Amino acid sequence: MSDADLETLKLALREFAQQRDWDQFHTPKNLASALIVEAGELLEHFQWMDRGDRESLSSRQREQVALEMADVLLYLIRLGDKLNVDLIAAARRKLELNALKYPASLARGSSKKYTEL
Amino acid sequence: MSDADLETLKLALREFAQQRDWDQFHTPKNLASALIVEAGELLEHFQWMDRGDRESLSSRQREQVALEMADVLLYLIRLGDKLNVDLIAAARRKLELNALKYPASLARGSSKKYTEL
Amino acid sequence: MSDADLETLKLALREFAQQRDWDQFHTPKNLASALIVEAGELLEHFQWMDRGDRESLSSRQREQVALEMADVLLYLIRLGDKLNVDLIAAARRKLELNALKYPASLARGSSKKYTEL
Amino acid sequence: MSDADLETLKLALREFAQQRDWDQFHTPKNLASALIVEAGELLEHFQWMDRGDRESLSSRQREQVALEMADVLLYLIRLGDKLNVDLIAAARRKLELNALKYPASLARGSSKKYTEL
Repeated sequence: MSDADLETLKLALREFAQQRDWDQFHTPKNLASALIVEAGELLEHFQWMDRGDRESLSSRQREQVALEMADVLLYLIRLGDKLNVDLIAAARRKLELNALKYPASLARGSSKKYTEL
Repeated sequence: MSDADLETLKLALREFAQQRDWDQFHTPKNLASALIVEAGELLEHFQWMDRGDRESLSSRQREQVALEMADVLLYLIRLGDKLNVDLIAAARRKLELNALKYPASLARGSSKKYTEL
Repeated sequence: MSDADLETLKLALREFAQQRDWDQFHTPKNLASALIVEAGELLEHFQWMDRGDRESLSSRQREQVALEMADVLLYLIRLGDKLNVDLIAAARRKLELNALKYPASLARGSSKKYTEL
Repeated sequence: MSDADLETLKLALREFAQQRDWDQFHTPKNLASALIVEAGELLEHFQWMDRGDRESLSSRQREQVALEMADVLLYLIRLGDKLNVDLIAAARRKLELNALKYPASLARGSSKKYTEL
């Protein structure tokens, strides 16, 4: 992981798991499960809303949403540690692939194209 | 977002959406939906495996998994941009809350405690 | 399972797995994972839509959505078989609990109440 | 929906929503979101377990799992009502497609084939 803050979080999570002897539970499969469970808790905040824009959330909701997002990020970092995936580098590769797949000139304003993203 | 690489990705994603006129689709609700869809594609790789350890994945699988993780990260960054959530700061707050909730002395080796995480 | 058609599907799924020697993969954990992966494929159809009303879907989309819903149902039935859960009876219990939790007189028209469902 | 018990549940859910004026929230998109949120709550019970076999669950856990499965089924039925999808008929079509896709003679004991399911 090339990113200083992500690297710091990765080491903090590693220590956190070791101190609690939780490494035994942190298989990639279990971490991917825990990640989607947190993604569900994140989506739950928005499930009956139209859009969920920032202004429509109370400050309490905003903090709850931020902490659910944090949970997703923490499991993502932990999974990256276990699988030796550099998240930032992978995100850059994915962005380049997306740029090839959806040229701005073709995709522009096209919801049809977009729904095939 | 205090993190240089995440900040760079945030700006790249913002430009990517603007060039394609996709901002109209990027409501927080839609981004949270897209995030969990990607989390499902990530979990799909592991669903019939016992553990999914790194050594048990082919290099092709590893790259596919890395790109699914990238998709989750990219939607998380985009959602953070829309909701003005600093992901790194939120992750630090969450880690501190977890440390209070699961003191190492009590949680150690306790799968029972753990399952209540 | 008290329901004739669900019972028939349960037996068909059991035979399907046995003929392929797939029972070994069908742990409750794996089936719950497979179920949410299919739920993600279902949500994918709607992720960039406003509402996803029936009339806004093409007949091809409608059939794809129906088959994703079928996948969710099939894994749910298979999980019910493995855990000996009578789905229909459980759904009736849940409906009764919901009726107690959300009395019509209080919940009526209240989106606030609803968001706490 | 050709199934008597599912039909009864469909009508009960319809009445439940009407009495609370909740129909306005039950767009297909929102129902697909709520469904995956419940699928996450179901998976949460299994996320740190090895297999989650029936005998390894307490009777309290079993009832909680049954009620999460019920939630998934109820949203699936409600979505079927909104989209006019006959769940049982769709499940039969899907089973037939799976039988063509995974002939028993080829798929037997093959985890490789299986992981491509």
